Parts: sequence; structure tokens; C-alpha cells
Amino acid sequence: MMGYDRSTSMFSPDGRLFQVEYAMEAAKRGWTMVGVRAVDGVVIVAEKRKTSPLIDIGQLEKVYMVDEHIGAGFVGFGSDGRILIDYARLLAVQYRFVYGEQIPVEYLTRQICDLMQVYTQHGGVRPFGVTLMIAGVDDTGPKLYVAEPSGQYISYKAHGLGQGGGQAIEVLQREYRDDMTLDDAILLGMKAVASVMEGRPTVETLEVGVVDTATQRFRKLSKEELQKFLEKLGV
Amino acid sequence: MMGYDRSTSMFSPDGRLFQVEYAMEAAKRGWTMVGVRAVDGVVIVAEKRKTSPLIDIGQLEKVYMVDEHIGAGFVGFGSDGRILIDYARLLAVQYRFVYGEQIPVEYLTRQICDLMQVYTQHGGVRPFGVTLMIAGVDDTGPKLYVAEPSGQYISYKAHGLGQGGGQAIEVLQREYRDDMTLDDAILLGMKAVASVMEGRPTVETLEVGVVDTATQRFRKLSKEELQKFLEKLGV
Amino acid sequence: MMGYDRSTSMFSPDGRLFQVEYAMEAAKRGWTMVGVRAVDGVVIVAEKRKTSPLIDIGQLEKVYMVDEHIGAGFVGFGSDGRILIDYARLLAVQYRFVYGEQIPVEYLTRQICDLMQVYTQHGGVRPFGVTLMIAGVDDTGPKLYVAEPSGQYISYKAHGLGQGGGQAIEVLQREYRDDMTLDDAILLGMKAVASVMEGRPTVETLEVGVVDTATQRFRKLSKEELQKFLEKLGV
Amino acid sequence: MMGYDRSTSMFSPDGRLFQVEYAMEAAKRGWTMVGVRAVDGVVIVAEKRKTSPLIDIGQLEKVYMVDEHIGAGFVGFGSDGRILIDYARLLAVQYRFVYGEQIPVEYLTRQICDLMQVYTQHGGVRPFGVTLMIAGVDDTGPKLYVAEPSGQYISYKAHGLGQGGGQAIEVLQREYRDDMTLDDAILLGMKAVASVMEGRPTVETLEVGVVDTATQRFRKLSKEELQKFLEKLGV
Amino acid sequence: MMGYDRSTSMFSPDGRLFQVEYAMEAAKRGWTMVGVRAVDGVVIVAEKRKTSPLIDIGQLEKVYMVDEHIGAGFVGFGSDGRILIDYARLLAVQYRFVYGEQIPVEYLTRQICDLMQVYTQHGGVRPFGVTLMIAGVDDTGPKLYVAEPSGQYISYKAHGLGQGGGQAIEVLQREYRDDMTLDDAILLGMKAVASVMEGRPTVETLEVGVVDTATQRFRKLSKEELQKFLEKLGV
Amino acid sequence: MMGYDRSTSMFSPDGRLFQVEYAMEAAKRGWTMVGVRAVDGVVIVAEKRKTSPLIDIGQLEKVYMVDEHIGAGFVGFGSDGRILIDYARLLAVQYRFVYGEQIPVEYLTRQICDLMQVYTQHGGVRPFGVTLMIAGVDDTGPKLYVAEPSGQYISYKAHGLGQGGGQAIEVLQREYRDDMTLDDAILLGMKAVASVMEGRPTVETLEVGVVDTATQRFRKLSKEELQKFLEKLGV
Amino acid sequence: MMGYDRSTSMFSPDGRLFQVEYAMEAAKRGWTMVGVRAVDGVVIVAEKRKTSPLIDIGQLEKVYMVDEHIGAGFVGFGSDGRILIDYARLLAVQYRFVYGEQIPVEYLTRQICDLMQVYTQHGGVRPFGVTLMIAGVDDTGPKLYVAEPSGQYISYKAHGLGQGGGQAIEVLQREYRDDMTLDDAILLGMKAVASVMEGRPTVETLEVGVVDTATQRFRKLSKEELQKFLEKLGV
Repeated sequence: MMGYDRSTSMFSPDGRLFQVEYAMEAAKRGWTMVGVRAVDGVVIVAEKRKTSPLIDIGQLEKVYMVDEHIGAGFVGFGSDGRILIDYARLLAVQYRFVYGEQIPVEYLTRQICDLMQVYTQHGGVRPFGVTLMIAGVDDTGPKLYVAEPSGQYISYKAHGLGQGGGQAIEVLQREYRDDMTLDDAILLGMKAVASVMEGRPTVETLEVGVVDTATQRFRKLSKEELQKFLEKLGV
Repeated sequence: MMGYDRSTSMFSPDGRLFQVEYAMEAAKRGWTMVGVRAVDGVVIVAEKRKTSPLIDIGQLEKVYMVDEHIGAGFVGFGSDGRILIDYARLLAVQYRFVYGEQIPVEYLTRQICDLMQVYTQHGGVRPFGVTLMIAGVDDTGPKLYVAEPSGQYISYKAHGLGQGGGQAIEVLQREYRDDMTLDDAILLGMKAVASVMEGRPTVETLEVGVVDTATQRFRKLSKEELQKFLEKLGV
Repeated sequence: MMGYDRSTSMFSPDGRLFQVEYAMEAAKRGWTMVGVRAVDGVVIVAEKRKTSPLIDIGQLEKVYMVDEHIGAGFVGFGSDGRILIDYARLLAVQYRFVYGEQIPVEYLTRQICDLMQVYTQHGGVRPFGVTLMIAGVDDTGPKLYVAEPSGQYISYKAHGLGQGGGQAIEVLQREYRDDMTLDDAILLGMKAVASVMEGRPTVETLEVGVVDTATQRFRKLSKEELQKFLEKLGV
Repeated sequence: MMGYDRSTSMFSPDGRLFQVEYAMEAAKRGWTMVGVRAVDGVVIVAEKRKTSPLIDIGQLEKVYMVDEHIGAGFVGFGSDGRILIDYARLLAVQYRFVYGEQIPVEYLTRQICDLMQVYTQHGGVRPFGVTLMIAGVDDTGPKLYVAEPSGQYISYKAHGLGQGGGQAIEVLQREYRDDMTLDDAILLGMKAVASVMEGRPTVETLEVGVVDTATQRFRKLSKEELQKFLEKLGV
Repeated sequence: MMGYDRSTSMFSPDGRLFQVEYAMEAAKRGWTMVGVRAVDGVVIVAEKRKTSPLIDIGQLEKVYMVDEHIGAGFVGFGSDGRILIDYARLLAVQYRFVYGEQIPVEYLTRQICDLMQVYTQHGGVRPFGVTLMIAGVDDTGPKLYVAEPSGQYISYKAHGLGQGGGQAIEVLQREYRDDMTLDDAILLGMKAVASVMEGRPTVETLEVGVVDTATQRFRKLSKEELQKFLEKLGV
Repeated sequence: MMGYDRSTSMFSPDGRLFQVEYAMEAAKRGWTMVGVRAVDGVVIVAEKRKTSPLIDIGQLEKVYMVDEHIGAGFVGFGSDGRILIDYARLLAVQYRFVYGEQIPVEYLTRQICDLMQVYTQHGGVRPFGVTLMIAGVDDTGPKLYVAEPSGQYISYKAHGLGQGGGQAIEVLQREYRDDMTLDDAILLGMKAVASVMEGRPTVETLEVGVVDTATQRFRKLSKEELQKFLEKLGV
Repeated sequence: MMGYDRSTSMFSPDGRLFQVEYAMEAAKRGWTMVGVRAVDGVVIVAEKRKTSPLIDIGQLEKVYMVDEHIGAGFVGFGSDGRILIDYARLLAVQYRFVYGEQIPVEYLTRQICDLMQVYTQHGGVRPFGVTLMIAGVDDTGPKLYVAEPSGQYISYKAHGLGQGGGQAIEVLQREYRDDMTLDDAILLGMKAVASVMEGRPTVETLEVGVVDTATQRFRKLSKEELQKFLEKLGV
């Protein structure tokens, strides 16, 4: 690749940005994460792995509250992702402070992506090594966005990320329906993640965050709720 | 090319700027987009592809409102384009605020191009990897500008961009007439884009933005309107 | 050239600045432009090419008004030239604001050249890839300056730039007389440009800007005026 | 590795950050350190080596008080660690000043990690060459965090760092129980460290810092206390 | 030279600054210029070449007024020299404004040289590619300084610069006398320049600036005066 | 070492900082210096060499007063050391000004080391090429610190630096006792330095700075005092 | 040397700073200069060469007044030296302004050396290519300091610099006595310089600056005084 891949401030002869493509490789290495949009809400399901018996998996968070009505997760370089989640929270608070209302989900996504884009056009920095999944409900309904290291984002009905992302997407494509309820969406998301996990999913190795249209509030499912869905899923 | 292509702050011995030329390669990789200027308005027709069945193509935007009287689209690196569209919107708002009237289309284009030029003359950054199409109506009539990564812009009667741009231009050159009405222009634009699409165009895979001289307002065609034009087109 | 040509902040062993020389190569690639100074005015004649039938050649400008009494054109890298023209306009307005009178032509030229020089002595930037032709009338009479990428400028009686510049200069050297009137100068300039054009010149493919000593006002010749000169020229 | 490992502002083609990985190598070279979380407190046990008989080992500190309720240690590049400990102290004081209460342990950890992340994404600097262990008690109970050069942190029940870290972790995995008291945790930590030391541990070659839930105060064990634990340990 | 010549911020192993030496090469390429100091004044004689018949040689300036009592010329990179002449004018005006009297010639020279030195010690810039000749009269009498790209200056009785500088110096060494009047000095300077010119010198191809001790005013010789000296010279 | 040693902002694959290690080489090249901590004070003994008979050795200082109660010396790159000594003096004065009391010895040492650390983590600078020895007495008793180019410092009972440092340390290890008086410590320090000197030590070639706990004042031994100790030493 | 000599911000593996060593090479290339300290004053003797018969050697200065009581000279890169002399003058004036008394000679020397040190530790600049000799008298008596490109300075009784420095030092070592009067010192300095000059020294080719303890005033010897000393010297 003859050096075109050494800097974010350089195009290759065929107009590619290698550093951005390499950052996407970093983003592919995380654990599997799935988002599903329903008619009455949106859900993110994340795999958690207990890489060591002494890790306090209860404190290990894969789905984050960004604002009352928005949750997010990411795959890739952990500290990069945390920086972006914190940045998202700041944007949401500022918006609420300035405009007196909650930030629209797409507007928030675009602001985050604008920061990510800066890190793809200027020398002396590297792109963020994460792909973000942003799920929320605002006055225009449930939304599910995926933001890539390039700073580009896409609106999805359902999507999968991480090591098992490709396999999870196959499950989603087979079973997704436009008229799904949130409960169906949760089940589908868990099924898609479960399909790529080693061993059976448990209330400890799954984390699920939802926002429903009725309350427009993000919350994580409790262990009891998770258990019920696992039973419905029959895995 | 012996390294002359590694920085925007370097000419090659024959006076070329390779990084700018590479950026134009990036700009050639987008989906096809066509602009046509009529006597009573101007139109941008953009191809949309459903790369995945789970993409929410309804939210996928290829033609953007910049200001009440101006629309724009771009081909190339997605997040770069979004940054420029946002910059254009900011310029339009500032102009309205300072001068109390709408920004002339060419003045807006020149301001955007001045920003693009800076990224071709200073080290440590790369050029913007997009070609913009800016369509609007102001007191001097309908206008169609194409702005390249170099920061140069040209006024066109009709033009095509992206992967199918060359083929679309052939259609335009064959059928464009200086006395076209906006309806004719819309049909021609759709025909040119359709000629390079795989499969038949639908209301889902085409996006059309127009500004007419009567209202001087940018708007996107509704699915109903699109359907009627598709029927007229007979494809 | 062993790397001496990679930066504007480096001399070669024989004291050359390669990046400046390469920028002059860029400046040689434009369409032909000719300037002629007469006893009662000064003229710039520029070739315009219709590279595509869909280009709106009426909007394609090669000779620009800088201030009431000054016009300018350039050959080379388009967006670089536009930046310098805009800078020239700003200088003229500022001068008028501060001193309450019009900027002397040479003073304006020197200010532009000072900016161009900065881009030849500092690292991390490249020289401007254009040669400017500045024509104006001030209290010291008609003036014609040519400013090169190095930031050097020369006062000419008549000069030619761009691809056909060398051939045009031969015409000028053969036929230029110190006692020419502005009408003679316009004819000579058109003849010199015509001599290097493919096909016959027309009112569409020539652009002519003049400043006469009587009014000290820059203006472009109308299509009617152009037509008359073309007829006189007999081409 | 072809140069991808020369800068923190560069991904390798497979999306790795080599400089961060190299920094982790630096962090592996320190003396062994172990942290253990109990139901009623948390402890850090650090090995101290008398590399020269003239070193004043009494002044050699491996476990530091960060704030009244938080202690910390690190392995790796000594002066880097000291900078981070001082930064942590500053954060704690500022929090107390602004909010009038003690800083939550995780919040402190995240702030430190945010600084560490900056040094992994920008050119012209290197990552911090240390791994930190942060132990504290706040209103949510005892906490034990490990922060890596990448800026990522993990919550552990028990963990080992440094040259003998791997071997110490084996001891911890074998003997750790979720219902341990602080006294049991101290004994386990000392046992794990002792298992990798050359020669018998003494009150001079071990340093132990604890925070208990009752007082929420960090303190180091006195030589007398250390002696008693050593006797219990029977080594 | 193994790369020691690539930056002004680098000495070669034998303590040389190659970029400064290369800049002196640039300074050797100008047309010939000669300065001669007399008991009652000082003169600069410069060669002008009509490289093209259409150049307006009347506007081509080789000797510049810096302040009422000081003139200057330079050989080498044209726009670099202009920047330094303008800087010199600024220094003279500021001095007059602050101290209410004319700037001493050596003080002015030193200030210019301080700027030139900065461009030899810091990276990211190149030295100025000119050698300046500064001639003036102040209360300490007539002065002639030569300032080199290194920022070093020397006081001369008479000196020659440019392509024919070496040959001109031979004439000066042979014929210079310490008790010369200004008229003798003018003649000697013209003779020295003439000795290296192709063809006979004329009022068009010589430019002569003088400052005499009586008026302490810089002025250029008129064509009539030049003609008389040429006749005395008998060339 | 494949380039990992070219910048302070780069780790080698095994987590080393070569530039810091090279700086330690520079620090090893100075003349021998020894510090010894006693129960009632602390002493630094430095070798001085008369490299030329015309050097004014009386003005050659190797042990410096930092503040009333602190002295310091260094080995390595002379001007680097002077900068740090001056920085130390500034810190001590500022502390006295802000807090109204003398700066604790360790606090001073840590501040100096923080500056040294900065020069090991950022590009475009090199580490300080010195190792400092800081001796002082504060309310916690006599202190002897050694600060390395990495920014790390260690508290010693006795230590040797410079070319003969290793050999001097052997003497110290053999003869140091924890209950030494300051007079014993001075004798031991002189013996250790003398053991590595060419020729016999004299009042001219030794410099001795002491701080005792009674006065908490740094002072240098007079030639008379030095002579007495030399006689006791019997060398 | 494998590139370790390309930047001041890099140590070589054996802890050397090549750029500083190269700068010392530059400093060795100047004409010979000698300083001698007497009981009642201090003197600098400098060689001047008439490299061209047209150089105004009367204006060529090798020994400079820094302040009323301090003189200085330098060997090496001329404009670098001038910058440091000007900096020294500024320091002296500021000191007088702030403290109301004359600057101590060593304090002045240290301040200059601090500036020189900065240019040895930061990238993007090169060290000053000069060695300075600073001679002055203050309340502590006559002083003679030599400051090297590294920023290190040494107090000398007598020293020689430049091309003939080594040979001059031999003369000084043979004949210097600690009880010399200023007149003896002047004679010795002149003898040492004369011993390395081609041809006999004259009042034109020697420059002598002295400061005596009685007046504490720097002055240069007049041609008459120089002549008398030359006669005493018998050369």
C-alpha cells in the first residue's frame, strides 16, 4: 500500500482512506452487539464475556444511557468508545440546557459523527477505532443509527456489529418484520446474539437496553426480565 | 509518482496536485446523481441503493435542503459531504442574518469552494473527497453548480456525477434542450439516472429535489409525484 | 532532483526553488490569455473553451473586475486563482475605506505578490499555482502587470500567458507599437489569441476586459462590441 | 510491523495500535502487585525489592494515598505512574472543592483513563507506560479498578499485575471467595504476592494499603500489623 | 551531503549550514550590481536587461529608495528581495516615528540582518535568497553595507554582486581610491558594471542611485545625467 | 534498534524508551560525585578536575546551594544540569513565598522530576541528559535523593554517580553504617571519591557541600576544613 | 552516525548530542581571539583579517561593548554571534532598569547560556554556531568567561578561541602568571594572537578591548595605544 496508509491526511491513488479502513478493522473485533427497531420502541442487545473468573462482570457495561431517551453501545477500541459516549452525554445535556427539550436522536448522531470526521481529515491524529450503535425515541418515533469510524452514519431497522455481527445479521434478515412490537424485537435481538455466542446465554452474559415510545425513557432490562425473555426464547 | 502524491502542500514536477486528483477518484465512487437546469427551475435526481434489506432507506438522504431556495447533493466520501452540507447551511443562515435576504447561489458555492481550496494548499490535511452539486434559484434565475475537490466550480446546464456519471452525461447531451420546462428536466434527469441503474427505478430508489422560479423554494418530490413521473417515463 | 523539490522551505544546491518552478508548470497549463497596454487604456483578452456542450459558458468567467479601475485574469490552478482575485478585491476595498481613494495598480499588485511570496518560503504549504495578469488605470496611466507564483511581478507593454502564450507573444512582438490606441490594442490582443485557438474565435469563446484612461473604469466588451472587433479582424 | 508501530496516531492494517501494545509491555516489567476486594473493604499488596543495600527502602513507596477513601498503585514506568497519581490527587481535591463530597471511585478512574486515552490518539506523544490499580470505598461499596495504557479500565474482584502478575492471579483464582472479609483478603493478597517473591516476604519487602467500608479511610498497614499477618500466613 | 542540506535547523558534521550556502548560490544569479563609497556620498549602479522587447523597462526598478537618506538594491530571488526592501522601509518609518530622526544606516542594516538570521536557525522555513546592498548617508558619513543570506553584513568601500560581480570587483580593486569624489565613484561604478555587460551600456540598461553628504538625500540619476556620465566614460 | 530510539514519543516493541536510556549514558560521563546521609546531616562530595592549567578552578562549581537547607549536584550534560538547578531554586523561592516556610526536600525533588518526565513523553524535545543528587534537611530529617533522566527519583542512604560511580558505591557499601555522624559521612564520601581519582585529592580538586540537622543550613566546606578532613583521611 | 546527528532533540546511543558537537566545529572556524585576566582588569585581543582590499576594516568589529563594564567577542557563525551580543546588551539594560545597578558578569553569562541551551534541547531549531568570550569587571573583580554552543560556560584565567586558538593557548600556558597587571595581560594576549597570524600584526589587524578594575569601564584601545603595545612587543 506503499505508505498511503500511514496518515489520515492522505488519499491513496484510488481515492481510499486506509487509516479509516484500518479503524474499521479495529471496530470489527469487539463482542457481538445487535440493535432492532420496533414499532413501539428500539432495543440494543449486547454480549458480555467473562474473560476471567475474577472480573466483576456486574460492573461491566456494554450498553450506556446517553440521555433519558437515548441509549448507545459500541464495538472496538474500548477507551475510544468511552470518550464518544461521554461526548454524546455532554451534547445531550447542552442541548437540553440551551433549547429546554430533549435532543433529537439523529441530531445527536450527526454531532458525534462530525467529531469522528475531523479525526479522518487532519494529520497527527488517528480515527476513532469504534463503531457506535445509537438507539432512541424522539417525537419522530423510534430510531436506530450506526456510526462508523469514517464519521458516516446509517439508519437501520436492525443491525449487528462485532465479531459475530455478520452471522447475527443473517438471523435478523431472516426474521425481521416491519410490524414487530418491542417485545418481539427484544426476543429477536437476543436470538441473533445468542446464535453467535459460545455456550448458552444467561442473565450475566447478555445486556439489554430499551427505549419505548410510550415513556420515551431508556432503561436496561433487569435480571428478572432477562430471565423471562430467555425462557421465551427457549435457549 | 515518487512521493509527490503524499501531501497537498507539494506540486509534482509537471505542476500537478496528486492528492487533489486522488480525492477526485474518491468522488467518482458514489452512486449516480444528475442535475438539470430548466427555464423555470432546476432539479437534482439521485440514485439510492438498498445495500441491505435492513437499511431504513426512507431515512437515507441523497439530496439535502441547504436553504429555502437551494438544494444540494454530493458523491464521494459520505462524512466529508455532510460536513460541507452543514457548512453550506451555516453560510446561508449567516447571510440571511447579516444581509436580511437569501444568499445568492453562486456566492454560496464560492464560499464552500474557498474552504475546499484551503484543504488543497496546506500540509497536514487532505482535500475533501467529494464533488458537490448545488442547485438553486435566486434573482438571477435557476442555477446549477458543480464543485470539485480542488475547490473549483463550474456552472452547468446539466451534468452527471458518480459511478454512472459518464453514461448519464451521454443521455443528457443527446436530449438536453435550452428551452426545457422543469417537468421536462425532471423527466430527463430521471431518464439519465435510470439508464445507469441496475433494475427498474422505483419511488424508493430515486430521490428528486427541485427548486422552481415561481416559488423559489426547494422541495423534494413526494412518492406520489415520483410515481407519476416514473409512469410518464414508461420504465 | 533528490528531494530538494519536496518543500518550499528548501533550496537546491544551485539555489533553485523547485516547488516554485513546478507551480509555474501548473500555471502554463491554462487557456491562452493576452494583455496589451495602449496609450489610452489597457486590455485583457482571454480564450474560453466549451469543454462540454452542457457547460454554461455564459457563466464561465476568465476576466474579473477587481475594483472599478482594475481588471485581472489568471492561468493555472482555478481555485488558487479565485482565492487571489478575492484577495485582490478585499485589498482594493480596504484601501478605498482607509484612504478614501482608489488603490494604485502597482501597489495592489505588490500586496498580492507579498502573499504569494509567503507561500514560497514557509514549510507545510505550497506556492499558488497561477500566474496573474493585472490590468488597470490609475493617475500614473494604464498599467499591465504579470505576477508569477514566486511572488515576482513585471510590468509589460504586452504579454501572453497559458498554453498558447509563447505563440501569442510572437504575434505581439511583431505587431506591438508604443503609440497604439486602445481599439488597436483590443484588435491586436484578439488577433494574438485567435492565432492559437483551434477553430475561429467567436463572441462565445473570447472574453475581453478593458480599462480606458478617460473613464478609469473596467468593463467587459458586450457581445455586440466583440462581434464588431471580430469583423474588423476578419477572422 | 513495517512502521505501523511508530506513532500513536496510526492503526495497523488489522486495526491494532502497536504503541499502546508496547506500552503494555513496559507495564509488565514492574514488581508484582495484587489487589483484592472483600465484602467490607479492599486491599492492595505490593512487592518492594531492595535492589541495593544503600537504598532507603523505608522511603520507597509502592502504594499511594489518592484521597481519604482511595489508594492506588501502579506497575511500569515510574515517573509516568507518579504523574498519574498526582493527577488523581488533583482530581480528587477538585471534586471535593466543587461538590463538597468525596469523589466516586469509578468517576475518578474514568477521568484518569480519559487522560490516558488522549495519549493514544494524538501524534507527537507516547502512551503512559503504566497499568494502574485503584482501590477505594464509596457509597456504592468497595471498588477495585485496573486501568491500562490504552485508557480502558475494568472492575475486578481480585487481580495481579507486574512480573509475577500471572502467577499471582492463579493463586487468586484458586482461593478467592465472594464472601471474604478484609482480613481474609489481606492474607490472600499477601499470599499471592509471596508466591512469586524470591526469598521470604518481610515487613520491609511488602507494602499493604487498605480501605475498609466502616471508616471509608485509606491507610497503610504498620510494620506490627504486617508482622501479624505474616505470622498468620506462616511464611 | 547526506541530508545535512535539507533544513536550516541542521549543521553538517563540519559545522556548515548548507541551506544558507545554497541561498548564496541563488543570490549569485542576479544581474550585476556595484556600490562605491566616496568621500562625499555613495552610489549604487545596477544593470538592467531587457529580456523581452515587450517588458516595460522604464518600470523595472533595481535600486530602491528605503528612506530619504538611504537607497538599496539586491541580487537573487526577486520577491524575497522585495519583502526585505519593504521591511527596511517599515523599519525606517518606525524609527522616524519613535525617535523623531532618521535611522542610522548601520542600525537599519542590522535590523534587516536579524530578520534574515531567524530564517537560518529555525526549521520549516528557508533563508532569504538574496544579497542586499544598502547605501546611505547619516551623521557618521557615507556608508555601504552588504548583507548576505546568512544575516551577516560587511561594510565595504566598494563591492560588486551578481553574475558579473567577481569581474566588477577586479575593476574596483584596480581603480578605487579612498579620496574619490561622488562623481568619480559614479563613473567607476558605471565602468565596473559596463565591463561585464553584453553590448554597450545605455540610459535604459543602467540604473544609478546616489546619496550625497551635502543633502543626505537619496535620488536616482535622470536619463540626462546618466547620458553625461556615459559620455565621460566614453563607452 | 530500528528507529525506536529516535524519539521520546515512541516505545520500542519491548516497552523501552531508548532516548531515556541514551540520556542516562550522557549522565554517566561526568566526574565522580558521592552523597552520604548521616544521622545528623547529609553531605555531597564532588570531584573537580583541572582540565587546563588556565581554568579558574576556584570558580568551577560542582555542588550548588538550591535553598538555605538544600544543596544539589549533577553529572552529565552541563547546561542541562544548570537549567534544572536554576529551576530548583525557583521552586524553592516560590514555595517560601506562597507558604511562608521552606520547601520539603522530597516535594522539591518531585517537582523537578515532573519537569524531567515531560521531556520523556512528548516529541520534538530530548530528555535532560543529567542525573541529579539532591541533599537537604527538613522537619523529617536528613534526605538524599537521586533523580534520573526518566524523571524517577530514589531515596538513598548513600550513592555514587559519574564515571567512578560504580567503584565509589563499592566503597560505600563496604563502609556505610546507619548510625554514622555527619563527620564520619564526610570522611566516607571523600574516601569513596578519592578511591577513583587519578592522583591524590587536594583542597582544589574536591568540593564538599553539607547540611546538618542542627542548623538546617547548606554550606560548603572551606579549604581549611577540607584540609583537616584530608589529613584525617591520610591520603 | 546513522541519523542521530540530524536533530537537537535526539541523543545518540552513547549519550552524545551531535548537533551540538557540529556547532562547535562551526565555532572553531573563526579568526583567532584571546582573553587574559589580570589582577587589575581583563582584556580581549582579536585578530582582524582584510579578506578584500575594499573591505572597510575600520568598521569591522570583533570586540563589542555589552554594557559599560563588560565587553565580548565571539568566533563562529557571524550573524548568530551578533544575535547573542544584542541579547546580552538587552539583558544588561533590563538588569540596570530593574535593579538600578550593573549586571554581574557571571549572571549575564548564565542568562545567555540559558538561551543557548534551549536551542540544544528542542526540535526544529539548531544550536547557536558560536563560542562567546565575555570579559568584565564587577564588584567581585575581573572575570573572563567562555560560553560554548552547548550552553555551558567556564571561567578562565586566559583562553584562546578560533582557528589559531590551540596554538595561542600554548603561548598563554607558557607565559601566564596569576599576578599579571592589565598591561602585561594586554601584551601577552597580543603576543598569543600574533603568534598565529600570517604576517606581522598591525593597528589595523588587531582589535583590543579592556576593562580595568579602577574604572570598571569597557573601552577599546586606540590606534596610538595599540601602536605602543606593538612596539613593546617588538613584532
